[in-house]
Amino acid sequence: MPQITGVTVEDVRFPTSLTADGSDAMNKDGDYSAAYVVLHTDGVDSAGAPLAGHGLTFTIGRGNDIVVAAAAHQAHRLVGLDVTTMAADMGAVYRLLTSDSQLRWLGPEKGVIHLSLAAVLNAAWDLAARLADKPLWRLLTDMSPEQLVDIADLRYLSDALTRDEALAILRAKQSTKADRLAELARTGYPAYTTSAGWLGYGDDKLRRLCQEAVDSGYGYVKLKVGADLDDDIRRCRIAREILGPHRNLMIDANQVWDVDQAIEWVKALAQFSPLWIEEPTSPDDILGHAAVRRAVAPVGVATGEHCHNRVMFKQLFQAEAIDFCQLDTGRLASINEIVAVLLLAAKFDVPVCPHAGGVGLCEMVQHVSVLDYVAISGDLTGRVTEFVDHLHEHFTDPCVVRDTGWGTGYVLPSTPGYSTRMHPASIAQYRFPDGLYWAAAEPATVSSPEPYVIAGGTATPAGR
Amino acid sequence: MPQITGVTVEDVRFPTSLTADGSDAMNKDGDYSAAYVVLHTDGVDSAGAPLAGHGLTFTIGRGNDIVVAAAAHQAHRLVGLDVTTMAADMGAVYRLLTSDSQLRWLGPEKGVIHLSLAAVLNAAWDLAARLADKPLWRLLTDMSPEQLVDIADLRYLSDALTRDEALAILRAKQSTKADRLAELARTGYPAYTTSAGWLGYGDDKLRRLCQEAVDSGYGYVKLKVGADLDDDIRRCRIAREILGPHRNLMIDANQVWDVDQAIEWVKALAQFSPLWIEEPTSPDDILGHAAVRRAVAPVGVATGEHCHNRVMFKQLFQAEAIDFCQLDTGRLASINEIVAVLLLAAKFDVPVCPHAGGVGLCEMVQHVSVLDYVAISGDLTGRVTEFVDHLHEHFTDPCVVRDTGWGTGYVLPSTPGYSTRMHPASIAQYRFPDGLYWAAAEPATVSSPEPYVIAGGTATPAGR
Repeated sequence: MPQITGVTVEDVRFPTSLTADGSDAMNKDGDYSAAYVVLHTDGVDSAGAPLAGHGLTFTIGRGNDIVVAAAAHQAHRLVGLDVTTMAADMGAVYRLLTSDSQLRWLGPEKGVIHLSLAAVLNAAWDLAARLADKPLWRLLTDMSPEQLVDIADLRYLSDALTRDEALAILRAKQSTKADRLAELARTGYPAYTTSAGWLGYGDDKLRRLCQEAVDSGYGYVKLKVGADLDDDIRRCRIAREILGPHRNLMIDANQVWDVDQAIEWVKALAQFSPLWIEEPTSPDDILGHAAVRRAVAPVGVATGEHCHNRVMFKQLFQAEAIDFCQLDTGRLASINEIVAVLLLAAKFDVPVCPHAGGVGLCEMVQHVSVLDYVAISGDLTGRVTEFVDHLHEHFTDPCVVRDTGWGTGYVLPSTPGYSTRMHPASIAQYRFPDGLYWAAAEPATVSSPEPYVIAGGTATPAGR
Repeated sequence: MPQITGVTVEDVRFPTSLTADGSDAMNKDGDYSAAYVVLHTDGVDSAGAPLAGHGLTFTIGRGNDIVVAAAAHQAHRLVGLDVTTMAADMGAVYRLLTSDSQLRWLGPEKGVIHLSLAAVLNAAWDLAARLADKPLWRLLTDMSPEQLVDIADLRYLSDALTRDEALAILRAKQSTKADRLAELARTGYPAYTTSAGWLGYGDDKLRRLCQEAVDSGYGYVKLKVGADLDDDIRRCRIAREILGPHRNLMIDANQVWDVDQAIEWVKALAQFSPLWIEEPTSPDDILGHAAVRRAVAPVGVATGEHCHNRVMFKQLFQAEAIDFCQLDTGRLASINEIVAVLLLAAKFDVPVCPHAGGVGLCEMVQHVSVLDYVAISGDLTGRVTEFVDHLHEHFTDPCVVRDTGWGTGYVLPSTPGYSTRMHPASIAQYRFPDGLYWAAAEPATVSSPEPYVIAGGTATPAGR
């Protein structure tokens, strides 16, 4: 019986700020990063290679070290566990990791300790799927309704969703799961692209990338907005010209507006018929999103990449605040919390269009979207999953998105696990600050404050 | 002109888990801790001692090191600042520290990076008050309405409170500030005690401490509840017997219930006429608190110690979810965010009864409550500030709470600063893990996971 024998957590950062990839109105210079957790075991996988679980959460640079430190705090509690026992009761693993009341104080269930928990649990789920020699979507869709409910964290949700209601949702889909899986194997899961619309790109690049998206079979393109209204009008006009009247344009403000300002700005862009406005204001402002939604209809409201836990999603649904749920696989506490949100979304009939991009998020969301369609919502109406075409080359089993003849979509992953294992060579290159890339980088391009020294309980910026 | 010449951030932990001080239904074994920030300068104070700013945030043990690391990330940005310039524009200091979009991703405005921001800004406010040679409450109540609004973070609040409305609230109190200050100098600011009611205390200790509270002049006592209903009924009966019918009993569940369960449990305790139920459910559940409040009236609903930012408080007010606002000086981003919440509370007519206890929270809240009464709410109705009588001996200017003849209250602090400077000897004793206390502690009593090693971007639990 394999056991978890050790843990490593690594700080991996890609210098994306050099090219304005990922730039938006709130985040101008992110260095896309991963707090990357490996759970080592003494077992071997079906190919005879060492069995290990690989998981991550996504950050945009500075502070990734803080998440790494928090993940190390949490992950070490898994060392010594029997992998078969663990995989048979992933609800217990979740409760073990969330049972530390002292760490809970630092959230609860939000911010750094929740991001790091996601990384650790993502690694645990990857390990469980590798042990079963299945892609994670297969492990999950093979589960019975009772098994899925047992892994889900339903705490604080019972006023909106009881365990019995959750079971009823899952049982209603049980007999037709195979049909939907066969469909997805044929068509892929619908995808849209954000690669065209980063705020730091000029008009010519925007025009070219929109055209490439159309040529690649995309029916959806998303633009970043919110820095300057005149610029936004010009950029939306370019995008709409190229997309034509029938493809979908989405816009994303990344939280830059107050509520009233959001309403005014979106009304000025409504002439371009956006499908949704994403993150119009503070991600914590449930009532604010509801007010924006009432005011800007028929433009939809979408949010979720910064929605920090299931209790916030519960309220977004209860308040009828959103048209699209963009849960994030690096921010929610992995499959255990994601299943709870998928169940809530199904009950409230809100389509889930997961946030992706970043580092490894596309690799993860494909499993979640398959689970949602096959076992929980049973519906593709209004569903489309984000795809950003960068950094996939660092993963051993990158997601595949292509025109299947039914539109552009994620192709069902075929290899075991959660698709989040990185190439050792990528880690050696981009580990911060000692990887080959960062060690050789000009100090001015190392987008980090001066390092600090922690010694004997004292943290002091180095050189002061 | 003094400059900030350096920063130290220290991990200070007190072994409170040994005595069950601070125990409640969610937090059974906290080691009360501080992430303690010192901003060093090359100046001297009015007594000729080195001028420095001292601030902290409160945690309950494990993970305090994570907050220390985050505070070091943020605090180093203040090094080199001219202290006089800084003190003259504390709004700019706030914006400087919150302008890092990469760190913002880890929240935003919540969890570890917000706790650490509070610690750093608390130190900056302590420094500003020491430079002015005033207690912080005096520095703040001496400000004009325009100055107070300029330091407040009103972002994301304009749908509930505009800058003009904020100014109007402050201007209406301006001409009568001196009267209210004179009153507080005479009466103190009303306080209540939680020291009697920790969940880990037996019935005899509970009875004795309730009697001591009554004998000390308290009109309010708070009990922890939520682990076992029969125990709660017995404990509330004991407390009510000793308090009699006219003193106030409050109960605190520390987030253990789902919404429906909270309603049922509080109804069973309503026979003891509690003034409020505190933290009945998830601190993120705004709509849940509103549902509890509608169901359990006339028992009031109180929350705030885990309410992570002003946007959450805005919604608690908009949704009419709480009767008492228990903002926390270690969780909100110091005076800049606290002033915004005090203004919102004044507009929505909700009394502010700050959360205290912990480490250093009592020292800070006294300044906040004075500011609230003198310059913002102008009202004491329904206001009472928490006091817990422990760990004050570690501060050089501990708060003073006594029966002033007008009831038990906080005596106006008279020394310059925010009252958050710790004795060097206390730090030497309780710094984790190398202070004299922890170095000598039995390993089994050191309430921490095994240490981990971060080297070259990799965090590994030591000894694995």
